[in-house]
Amino acid sequence: MTRRIRLGMVGGGQGAFIGAVHRIAARLDDQYELVAGALSSDTARADASAAALHIEPGRRYAGFEEMAEREATRPDGIDVVAIVTPNHLHFAPAQTFLARGIHVICDKPVTHRLEDALTLASAVERSRLIFALTHNYTGYPLVRQARDMVASGALGTIRVVQVEYPQDWLTNRLEETGQKQAAWRTDPARSGDAGCIGDIGTHAFHLAEFVTGLRCESVAAELTRFVKGRALDDNAQMLLRFSSGARGMLWSSQVAPGNENALRLRVYGEKAGLDWSQEQPNALLFTPLGEPPQLIRRAGSGANAVAAHASRIPAGHPEGYLEAFAQIYRDVAEQIHARLETREPDPASLLVPGIADGVRGMHFIAAAVASSQANAAWTAIET
Amino acid sequence: MTRRIRLGMVGGGQGAFIGAVHRIAARLDDQYELVAGALSSDTARADASAAALHIEPGRRYAGFEEMAEREATRPDGIDVVAIVTPNHLHFAPAQTFLARGIHVICDKPVTHRLEDALTLASAVERSRLIFALTHNYTGYPLVRQARDMVASGALGTIRVVQVEYPQDWLTNRLEETGQKQAAWRTDPARSGDAGCIGDIGTHAFHLAEFVTGLRCESVAAELTRFVKGRALDDNAQMLLRFSSGARGMLWSSQVAPGNENALRLRVYGEKAGLDWSQEQPNALLFTPLGEPPQLIRRAGSGANAVAAHASRIPAGHPEGYLEAFAQIYRDVAEQIHARLETREPDPASLLVPGIADGVRGMHFIAAAVASSQANAAWTAIET
Amino acid sequence: MTRRIRLGMVGGGQGAFIGAVHRIAARLDDQYELVAGALSSDTARADASAAALHIEPGRRYAGFEEMAEREATRPDGIDVVAIVTPNHLHFAPAQTFLARGIHVICDKPVTHRLEDALTLASAVERSRLIFALTHNYTGYPLVRQARDMVASGALGTIRVVQVEYPQDWLTNRLEETGQKQAAWRTDPARSGDAGCIGDIGTHAFHLAEFVTGLRCESVAAELTRFVKGRALDDNAQMLLRFSSGARGMLWSSQVAPGNENALRLRVYGEKAGLDWSQEQPNALLFTPLGEPPQLIRRAGSGANAVAAHASRIPAGHPEGYLEAFAQIYRDVAEQIHARLETREPDPASLLVPGIADGVRGMHFIAAAVASSQANAAWTAIET
Amino acid sequence: MTRRIRLGMVGGGQGAFIGAVHRIAARLDDQYELVAGALSSDTARADASAAALHIEPGRRYAGFEEMAEREATRPDGIDVVAIVTPNHLHFAPAQTFLARGIHVICDKPVTHRLEDALTLASAVERSRLIFALTHNYTGYPLVRQARDMVASGALGTIRVVQVEYPQDWLTNRLEETGQKQAAWRTDPARSGDAGCIGDIGTHAFHLAEFVTGLRCESVAAELTRFVKGRALDDNAQMLLRFSSGARGMLWSSQVAPGNENALRLRVYGEKAGLDWSQEQPNALLFTPLGEPPQLIRRAGSGANAVAAHASRIPAGHPEGYLEAFAQIYRDVAEQIHARLETREPDPASLLVPGIADGVRGMHFIAAAVASSQANAAWTAIET
Repeated sequence: MTRRIRLGMVGGGQGAFIGAVHRIAARLDDQYELVAGALSSDTARADASAAALHIEPGRRYAGFEEMAEREATRPDGIDVVAIVTPNHLHFAPAQTFLARGIHVICDKPVTHRLEDALTLASAVERSRLIFALTHNYTGYPLVRQARDMVASGALGTIRVVQVEYPQDWLTNRLEETGQKQAAWRTDPARSGDAGCIGDIGTHAFHLAEFVTGLRCESVAAELTRFVKGRALDDNAQMLLRFSSGARGMLWSSQVAPGNENALRLRVYGEKAGLDWSQEQPNALLFTPLGEPPQLIRRAGSGANAVAAHASRIPAGHPEGYLEAFAQIYRDVAEQIHARLETREPDPASLLVPGIADGVRGMHFIAAAVASSQANAAWTAIET
Repeated sequence: MTRRIRLGMVGGGQGAFIGAVHRIAARLDDQYELVAGALSSDTARADASAAALHIEPGRRYAGFEEMAEREATRPDGIDVVAIVTPNHLHFAPAQTFLARGIHVICDKPVTHRLEDALTLASAVERSRLIFALTHNYTGYPLVRQARDMVASGALGTIRVVQVEYPQDWLTNRLEETGQKQAAWRTDPARSGDAGCIGDIGTHAFHLAEFVTGLRCESVAAELTRFVKGRALDDNAQMLLRFSSGARGMLWSSQVAPGNENALRLRVYGEKAGLDWSQEQPNALLFTPLGEPPQLIRRAGSGANAVAAHASRIPAGHPEGYLEAFAQIYRDVAEQIHARLETREPDPASLLVPGIADGVRGMHFIAAAVASSQANAAWTAIET
Repeated sequence: MTRRIRLGMVGGGQGAFIGAVHRIAARLDDQYELVAGALSSDTARADASAAALHIEPGRRYAGFEEMAEREATRPDGIDVVAIVTPNHLHFAPAQTFLARGIHVICDKPVTHRLEDALTLASAVERSRLIFALTHNYTGYPLVRQARDMVASGALGTIRVVQVEYPQDWLTNRLEETGQKQAAWRTDPARSGDAGCIGDIGTHAFHLAEFVTGLRCESVAAELTRFVKGRALDDNAQMLLRFSSGARGMLWSSQVAPGNENALRLRVYGEKAGLDWSQEQPNALLFTPLGEPPQLIRRAGSGANAVAAHASRIPAGHPEGYLEAFAQIYRDVAEQIHARLETREPDPASLLVPGIADGVRGMHFIAAAVASSQANAAWTAIET
Repeated sequence: MTRRIRLGMVGGGQGAFIGAVHRIAARLDDQYELVAGALSSDTARADASAAALHIEPGRRYAGFEEMAEREATRPDGIDVVAIVTPNHLHFAPAQTFLARGIHVICDKPVTHRLEDALTLASAVERSRLIFALTHNYTGYPLVRQARDMVASGALGTIRVVQVEYPQDWLTNRLEETGQKQAAWRTDPARSGDAGCIGDIGTHAFHLAEFVTGLRCESVAAELTRFVKGRALDDNAQMLLRFSSGARGMLWSSQVAPGNENALRLRVYGEKAGLDWSQEQPNALLFTPLGEPPQLIRRAGSGANAVAAHASRIPAGHPEGYLEAFAQIYRDVAEQIHARLETREPDPASLLVPGIADGVRGMHFIAAAVASSQANAAWTAIET
């Protein structure tokens, strides 16, 4: 049997949210073992966190540079590193591990500055290594099925794309209370020029392009800071023009009371529509023109092979966010195994977002910010 | 007991859709009797239609001018006329009946040209008569409650307004098949410069302002014609700026497969949100920040006096579109009765949209069309 | 053009609920005029109520006997009478009007004693008149479509029938507060042996048989009085055996907090299932085995001619309870017109429930009460 | 840091469904390592399965007896064994491991014969070991919150309990096709006297008692075999009497097209109701009488500490079936750690169902089967 992939982690010490999610995701399908970590810039915390995760003492690192260096030279060194630090701390470790020949799984957005993302893209290309970006919503089975249905022509030529991602957790000035998640996300030094648009707007944008296969060529964006004293946008609304002629809208917000993670994508073509919501991810509404709407359910009737690839359990037993996140890890594992075994990976595993998606996301942020500064003038998204 | 209001109708002959709706609306609460009509420009059809509606022979008119003249001089002449012709045929009869001292209930949009709307507004003002515009969605009990909740401060200062009205009935080029509803709605000569944006975008816009009490000061709009050969927009997407600083989006579409009349309004304030959908009009989701969302149901717990004014039957027995439409008629009846009885009308009856809403809708259309022609540049809505 | 049907009403004076519903239902499609009434046993109230309804003085009757006698002899006498009194006051007027040759529309349950129902059945048969029972839920377009789909074999042989009708309005002892609706419904002298089971259980039972076309041959019933001091059941649960071999359950309750009028029917056959809820009456879920569930919408794709017969407005504009109720009246009007014109009625109009349904409902109540008294022993429903 | 719990598994070789679920559940929170297994009665398959799971060669056992014996004597022997064989193969391994002093996590129903369950109960009691039964639905956060709300009196005295669990996968005679899951579930030799009622009816029954804290004292049950040639019931309907005076209904079915795992529980008390559905497990509808229904969401506003104990990720990111299943494992881990550390376990971990629940389930099955054989006569559930 194939061995487990050896995983290291940068960031994700005690108290962090997304690091724990990455670890569950890695564990879920039993294809990884977490063997090394530079989990915190606070040495004591890094050590305690690693111990709690059963990482052996010799592989509990104080910094990612040391970790990269040492792991690269061990015969049982890590195959891949997960980078789960705040946005502004993605770039340096990513470069470092790539330089050491270690694959990278990186949280999104890929960096907090566009130029870093471009630099990193070159590094990835030179390295020929795997660079996976956890646009985790693409791991949902029915998101992948939606993409497949669009690609297969089930909707006809796409005309309209409506995507939104409202939340409410920053309705008040939470960052002032010392809440860590809020603090770094609203701090330009750590999140770049984008608040809401970078944190969740990029998810919405990525999902829209992922499912439709279209390229959004320009945006007319209005970014707003509703909460007094906040430095970055907490609400973003924009018009989208796709190169195919399709038209769309994107709304992301962190100040919409009652919304938790209400990511929703609707796609309308000449022949049919699709409607998917992240909070009800086991259902996909398919609306062929002139027929009753159909409720496609994960692993149920109407679910196809693409969805089955990303499913674990039978229909009617809901899967959720962690399973979708785990799918990214499972697909990366397949890609790594394929390299270890010098074979082609399962093509279904290649849907994992990568550095190109990361760069694209940065271009999207840049365009949205620029458009907003130019009074919502149409602004091209560079490619 | 008060007598029934005497109602005349212009347009709405056999085969018309909205005329029949107006008649049901007038009948539902038993406060009107339809006694006169100029129901069609085709004399034979006008006569047959009137006969079928039990209008006595002497009051089956071939034209609205004759009807206005004769009814104005009868001692039992009509109190009010309902104008239910296609958009380009609202203006002339409205002016005529006002000139004869007869109240008017007019289908929306008020006219197909802005200048006509302005002319009509002057005429209404001079006449001191009642001019009601059937923005019928404002007749839904929970729409009125939503408005009341916003006004009472239950949401705090409003920040975000998301409104949409997608349909799918013009996904194909239905107007080529001879379907009458499609034909005039897609014909610039009869619908003015606006297709989708005039037909349903105005409803969405009106609903947003009606509920929030805010003024939208400018739009950045993208109107699109997706169906080849169509002369008017069949999809409209735009950003909204409100004078208060609130921000919004509006989407209306006639090419979104699976959508019937999916008008939906979401309003988010500093303290709470509201979510209402026309296809499930008996429920209003209220989302106070930091509390579980509450499902307010028509006539149920949480429904208030404003909603009760517009309800007929107990909770759990759904009311629908016709009841909401009837509310407009019921409130107009109250206004007319108050005048007949020289008393103040019930204040709750004064929510009926009027000529100012009609002019506002025309300004909105003009701004949206102009913005779209200017590459979605921000364009002020005149006031 | 055909004249309007002349309608009289017994009961339904000011303050009554169901009388007002009947009047709206009669008005909605403009095929009736209310011309006579014995609206209350209180003469002053009867008179005031009639005046408010524009009934002319000479036809405002103090009692139904006088009304029947006089109307039967007028050349313009009523064609049909609507009986909307409490349950125990249906029998006498029904007999009286039938004896005078006047058609009857009667609220349900048909009587409060089984023997009265049987007597009335004979009277109806002898009279050859129309006797319509307002099991109004059968007027919903998608209920009729559901029936048609079962009959056409779309579900295959039916196996399981689940029907329920929970409410919450009698969770507390409302009848003690003087609330009239609660008072008579919980009073054995006016409601017979059955509380909840008679008031709403009969609706559920009727709906199940109406849609499936099956005969329920026996019940094992548990009727419960949860509220202390109440004389009649406020919760009913039972197992159902159908003569075809199908099996079912029925639950009705007036003490289930959060439920308004949550009538719901689910039918499962060898090939497919159906699911319909009264509070969302514009949708019917159709679940063919091995295919995605389909959402059939009133007047939308998938709605058939049977549903269209009972619809008024296009898809996406919700119809509700009043429209369904009106359908009973519309179908009765068609039946009366057919007799007046000596022609066959539209077959679609013949779905209106009649005296047989009324007798059946009384047998159902009797069986349920007897079963419950016999410790839920299986008890046959007589036929 | 505390070490990982050492887990062995009996059953769950390649191709099995529930074994894989148990393993994911054990892995999810990183508190177990799977170190030993007797995964199949087919030696080659057992070995291959164990290898695929990274179990070291010396701990890949051919039979559970050998495994129990060897593991009991190893210094690093397993702490706990998961028994995931078909129902008729739970009893023997459970007894064997208990006899060796090894804790047991057992799939439900606990055995396929009541007498075995009783024997096992004695063995558990004597052993003083942990015996956990995977009534996994009790692991859902909002199920636990529902239980807590009832216990805290938020609903007042409970009156009505409606529980159902419909599926459709056995609508046709799937067992004839060689499908393994269907084959053993419909085979009396492997599933005992109960088909649907044992497989999923027990889940529904357990959930009802778990949430309400009430004891069901008797049932009047109708078990039906709809599919020709099937030996066990595929549909079960019954009335429930609780010792408190509450009344209920239970429906479970495997022949209801369109239903996947539609487990739903509704509880109504004097003050409020609760409504929870397994397919939408992140929401709990709370319906206080006289107030708008509230939508309590997992980890959102309204979710309490009991729910938080069973949650992993923030609100709005759905958790599902695997997370609920993992909660059982996480709570067992806490119990084992507490013993290892000679301390009291977190009280919240003690909600895990145990042998008493297993015996109760067997009594429930016996009563339901006996009642059905006695024409649905009320039959006591022994205690």
